[in-house]
Amino acid sequence: MAESGERELPRKAFGWAARDSSGILSPFTFSRRANGDNDVTLSIIFCGICHSDLHALKNEWTNSIYPIVPGHEIVGQVKEVGKNVTKFKVGDKVGVGCMVGSCRSCHSCNKGCENYCPNIIFTYNSVDRDDTITYGGYSDMVVVDQHFVVKVPDVIPLDRAAPLLCAGITVYSPLRHYGLSEPGQHIGVVGLGGLGHVAVKFAKAFGAKVTVISTSPNKKQDAIEKLGADSFLVSRDPEQIMAAIGTMDGIIDTVSAMHPLLPLLALLKLDGKLIMLGIPDKPLELPLFPLIMGRKIVAGSCIGGMQETQEMIDFAAKHNITADIEVVPIDYVNNAMERLAKADVQYRFVIDIANTLKAT
Amino acid sequence: MAESGERELPRKAFGWAARDSSGILSPFTFSRRANGDNDVTLSIIFCGICHSDLHALKNEWTNSIYPIVPGHEIVGQVKEVGKNVTKFKVGDKVGVGCMVGSCRSCHSCNKGCENYCPNIIFTYNSVDRDDTITYGGYSDMVVVDQHFVVKVPDVIPLDRAAPLLCAGITVYSPLRHYGLSEPGQHIGVVGLGGLGHVAVKFAKAFGAKVTVISTSPNKKQDAIEKLGADSFLVSRDPEQIMAAIGTMDGIIDTVSAMHPLLPLLALLKLDGKLIMLGIPDKPLELPLFPLIMGRKIVAGSCIGGMQETQEMIDFAAKHNITADIEVVPIDYVNNAMERLAKADVQYRFVIDIANTLKAT
Repeated sequence: MAESGERELPRKAFGWAARDSSGILSPFTFSRRANGDNDVTLSIIFCGICHSDLHALKNEWTNSIYPIVPGHEIVGQVKEVGKNVTKFKVGDKVGVGCMVGSCRSCHSCNKGCENYCPNIIFTYNSVDRDDTITYGGYSDMVVVDQHFVVKVPDVIPLDRAAPLLCAGITVYSPLRHYGLSEPGQHIGVVGLGGLGHVAVKFAKAFGAKVTVISTSPNKKQDAIEKLGADSFLVSRDPEQIMAAIGTMDGIIDTVSAMHPLLPLLALLKLDGKLIMLGIPDKPLELPLFPLIMGRKIVAGSCIGGMQETQEMIDFAAKHNITADIEVVPIDYVNNAMERLAKADVQYRFVIDIANTLKAT
Repeated sequence: MAESGERELPRKAFGWAARDSSGILSPFTFSRRANGDNDVTLSIIFCGICHSDLHALKNEWTNSIYPIVPGHEIVGQVKEVGKNVTKFKVGDKVGVGCMVGSCRSCHSCNKGCENYCPNIIFTYNSVDRDDTITYGGYSDMVVVDQHFVVKVPDVIPLDRAAPLLCAGITVYSPLRHYGLSEPGQHIGVVGLGGLGHVAVKFAKAFGAKVTVISTSPNKKQDAIEKLGADSFLVSRDPEQIMAAIGTMDGIIDTVSAMHPLLPLLALLKLDGKLIMLGIPDKPLELPLFPLIMGRKIVAGSCIGGMQETQEMIDFAAKHNITADIEVVPIDYVNNAMERLAKADVQYRFVIDIANTLKAT
């Protein structure tokens, strides 16, 4: 039985939840809906820890509904399919990302951008169609409409695939949408965290020259030797910035702390594109002179559509792209959050759900 | 002879110049180069007064070189052509806009974007290829490389054509470049001044629904009845903004004062584009949440290339688009500047050079 006074649903589930804005996670018994005609039930094997999980746990976006079970980088195995499910069968390896529903009929949904649907249902902390609150992947199982499930190709190790469902699609989608996936371009990646490190890999696979732009000179070796970047710029070093002015076609900016855009705009060529993926607490300063004098663009992007997510993971499989991860047991999750807050991870924590999450 | 100790050039010229950052204009005798093999000499008939003339006169961009002869919305008649000139003949009605030179070999020049050439030579206050300082159109004649001259179709009244050379191309270019010229779109125009009023006309001619967005409710009648806008939004009225949220494909923002971008971003649809044409003194605040959650774009644009400028004026001729102007004699120019500083003009001053500028 659900412990929290929530509406009781037919399927027993178990996970770890935070009860308040301390954000401390602890075991949590709850329930999920029965597998519907269009649903896929999966037993969760791994779940990545995204930085937005940390924001949500601590109510930093002031919209958290407790108890909250985070997790939207889910991979698992299909245990049951509804009678209308054609895309999956029992035993398939599948993934679920940031969303589990959308209206399916608006302008955004019709063009394959469920991620921009005004009625998007997020994988956790969202009101589902049956008025229950969605619970994420720090749990043993989940029931999801087949439209919001993707197939994970057999060649990708499941643990290293999990972060692709959020971090991967978040960088893949803007590279594709904004024309930055054409070979021969020079792409900058700002911030070498969960998003940034896969951005480097995707951009390289697209055939770009990739420059990592970071405040931390000590990330240079990793960027070049481990992730395959072509060069490295220390963003606080005016000489390094000056030497690279006007050389980049696009920049993927993954930083969610306050930071100046002026040097980034300066790095772009005519018609260059600065793609913002992080949301700092306060508005950033937008210098208009370089924007106007170079016909440059500052643009946003948020995850990706479902078809694009499948395309991304198929592309990743083909090009051997996975996330660099540290696998942790569920009872390490609070430590992981502390370390994540200090950016002390290379580059993504992934929880070993199948082997370490046991109902108490 | 040139009065200011400048290098003496073969052609006598006469205009009005400011001598210091008071910005006060007064008669000025100077000289221009002889007509070269690729040059066109034109006698100036009308010259528009652009807001940037006022900035330059008062050294507000801290790069003014005195004496300064402003004016980059020039129309006139060809008096002489060099032996390599194929595009023009004596007697042609022609126009010169914001630039009179560029390197002609860089990436920008090669793609027809001379306006983004790092070595662009502006029509005034710029160092020319012969190391002289360029002087603009508040003068009787000018010598310009044919590449930087456009033909003005006979059907356009010359006085009303002059502002198209800067204000016209400045709004036409981004509408075309950013895909906002496809019919059936909903385009917002922020600020109803020299740029804004022609933006309304071009957008209407492209087949858009046009909404003027202004802080001044008293501009509504003009916007709709005189300029042909479909609707009008008072930007400081939250209710009017709320009612139009998510309805626009693109917004042309002509305002160079500080102003909030949040309501403008809110007005855009998914993939909507906010095009910035004005440069406020300080950076504007860029709110990232709406940018990212709606995959929106903030972009810049600065005048246009030469081929595009010819295309613009041909399009204007075809669709009967001209600027709304107040023609003034040259000895009114200081009054005009005072009124321009107070935005007291509908919508562009144009100096009647041919009839009122006489060498003293």
